[in-house]
Amino acid sequence: MQLEKYTSLYKYTLLDNVIPFWLEHSADTEFGGYFTCLDRVGDVFDTDKFVWLQCRQVWCFAMLYNKVEKKQQWLDFALQGAAFLEKYGRDSSGNWYFSLNREGAPLTQPHSIFSDCFASMAFGQLYKATNQPGHAKIAVDTFYSILAKKDNSKGMYNKSFPGTRPLKGFALPMILCNLVLEIEHLLDADLVEKTIQDGIDTILGEFYRPDLGIILENVTPDGGFSDSFEGRLVNPGHGIEAMWFLMDLAERSNDKDLARKAMEITLNMLEYSWDKKHGGIFYFMDVKGLPPQQLEWDQKLWWVHMETLISLLKGYLHTSDERCWSWFEKVHAYTWQHFSDPKYAEWYGYLNRQGEVLLPLKGGKWKGCFHVPRGLYQCWKTLEAIAEKKSEVQYL
Amino acid sequence: MQLEKYTSLYKYTLLDNVIPFWLEHSADTEFGGYFTCLDRVGDVFDTDKFVWLQCRQVWCFAMLYNKVEKKQQWLDFALQGAAFLEKYGRDSSGNWYFSLNREGAPLTQPHSIFSDCFASMAFGQLYKATNQPGHAKIAVDTFYSILAKKDNSKGMYNKSFPGTRPLKGFALPMILCNLVLEIEHLLDADLVEKTIQDGIDTILGEFYRPDLGIILENVTPDGGFSDSFEGRLVNPGHGIEAMWFLMDLAERSNDKDLARKAMEITLNMLEYSWDKKHGGIFYFMDVKGLPPQQLEWDQKLWWVHMETLISLLKGYLHTSDERCWSWFEKVHAYTWQHFSDPKYAEWYGYLNRQGEVLLPLKGGKWKGCFHVPRGLYQCWKTLEAIAEKKSEVQYL
Repeated sequence: MQLEKYTSLYKYTLLDNVIPFWLEHSADTEFGGYFTCLDRVGDVFDTDKFVWLQCRQVWCFAMLYNKVEKKQQWLDFALQGAAFLEKYGRDSSGNWYFSLNREGAPLTQPHSIFSDCFASMAFGQLYKATNQPGHAKIAVDTFYSILAKKDNSKGMYNKSFPGTRPLKGFALPMILCNLVLEIEHLLDADLVEKTIQDGIDTILGEFYRPDLGIILENVTPDGGFSDSFEGRLVNPGHGIEAMWFLMDLAERSNDKDLARKAMEITLNMLEYSWDKKHGGIFYFMDVKGLPPQQLEWDQKLWWVHMETLISLLKGYLHTSDERCWSWFEKVHAYTWQHFSDPKYAEWYGYLNRQGEVLLPLKGGKWKGCFHVPRGLYQCWKTLEAIAEKKSEVQYL
Repeated sequence: MQLEKYTSLYKYTLLDNVIPFWLEHSADTEFGGYFTCLDRVGDVFDTDKFVWLQCRQVWCFAMLYNKVEKKQQWLDFALQGAAFLEKYGRDSSGNWYFSLNREGAPLTQPHSIFSDCFASMAFGQLYKATNQPGHAKIAVDTFYSILAKKDNSKGMYNKSFPGTRPLKGFALPMILCNLVLEIEHLLDADLVEKTIQDGIDTILGEFYRPDLGIILENVTPDGGFSDSFEGRLVNPGHGIEAMWFLMDLAERSNDKDLARKAMEITLNMLEYSWDKKHGGIFYFMDVKGLPPQQLEWDQKLWWVHMETLISLLKGYLHTSDERCWSWFEKVHAYTWQHFSDPKYAEWYGYLNRQGEVLLPLKGGKWKGCFHVPRGLYQCWKTLEAIAEKKSEVQYL
């Protein structure tokens, strides 16, 4: 397929298929916030409100308003979700609950620091649209709260016995690398630089294993390997997603070495985790090839594939390495053939190893208005940048 | 197949295949306790010690010693696991940890009341073999601790926000119905009767939905339906397993109505959860047919099939209903064809929906020396009882 056709496919699927799906089906006009448990055609099958997904949907519509078009409908849609979150989302200490019922009463305690991460991201993006100090304050207060609790993020809900096998996880340093760029406009420049440098050092110096070309999901406090279920765990989608966060940081500081390194790791992780039998990228693996604990290890998930497409295109943009383009075409073909629904809008989220639909939903507890629209937007814009770069080269 | 051939298959698979596998491969002769993470051939692939499985293996070898043959090797094997548990298994308040490392240091806090249930069961069965008051004391103290905390069993590790959507789970009343018979010899008769009656009333009066013929996994405190992910959840293996616990209680009190009811529910649950496309019993379902949260919902698990075989045979023994025998032959064929390993000892635990091996292990974090040997023993003995009953009928 030609570059322009890819660009157009990603752009118009975002604007004419995915965004209308969420606008049409997800608003709770009675209690505020969004429904995210939506079946194949978009009908609501459960009304619980998961704070990760509420925040991510606010972020998504604010981002579209800020970056694509100043449509009042998009901003209003973000604002109605934000109002619900402002009213019901936090406990008295400012920690974000994990889930609420339809009316906004808390269902699950604030045990996940990622609820805070996505809240800070949402209100930081919303502030860019509204300039309301209240939105900035929520983003910044939540960011400082994340920094304060990041070394013991589960707090009282931590089931690990202290000291026997301390491990640190990849998800938080990875998300901070993205979050700090999202709310850079609200933070002190030194804090931004320090957070970025810490993030890069942690990811490349501790979680990345140069001998294997692989990123691990959990390491010992000093960055060592733990030969345990948690220590052997590889989450290919996480590792690959983090690589486009690093490429964005590399672009910001014009660090070509960092961009190339992130591109190489993307390709290594992808070659390692690609299912040679049925196609698609595995959800979880054990770095020693042992049976993982996760029974869903061989399933194919939408976000893993979407994030991989972004990393491959950004890798191609920054390095012109043809392996990126060739892998992009292969992952694109798998993704659009299996996750995209030929009959109704939005994408399936969960396929079995064979690529058949495992759950006939478009949204649920973990799949909301986030990875698909963000990915379509990122791919669209990166494809445009690739086209622009190619045309510049032509006219040199 | 003839009755005697089935009997012999279950008996000799237990004695010549499964028990030798655990004796040979699972002893940690250096630190005590058992390895349960064993690959296809029995090699240890991880050394963590999960308290559920440590306890269940002690129970299993003590039970074999008590009920099958007074082999010193079996008792010694149970005792070495019990010594490890006595030394390392509990916190200072007597709560059983969830997992330990190889050396016995706690890895996971005592957040699961089922660790306590299996500990009480293990030491109660062991006491029958040893007559050591120390073993009885652990079983009884732990049982009273379970009763004391059963209404808030997760304690400080509970992530639910109090009051918004209180639910109670099926697993604990179900296991208490079995546990109370296991340690009946150590308890006051009134407490035994009360626990049994509470268990039966709760299971049949609250979790069982007569309109659907289905047992739900979670209900409201007054036994009502909660239209939420948790409230819609059906765990067919759990429900069917509980039915043979009820049949054992029915046998004890010669309650033919209870036995027949448990048999009918077994058949209903099985017809409901049998995979009409690929065979086997689904792991999780949503009672309204909506997408469940569990990504592993369509997988086929060893324990679900083993427990179903027991309930079908006990149902047949108690009611002579031919549907039980016909379903037994069907589930037997699926189970032995897919879970049994034609080349090496013990059974696979995890199959995908199509019946292919998902994880090539014989033991792990959740699969230990328990459901397969207990099921083989129960089926063997129930098949013998069926044969005896048939021969009595012949000579009437």
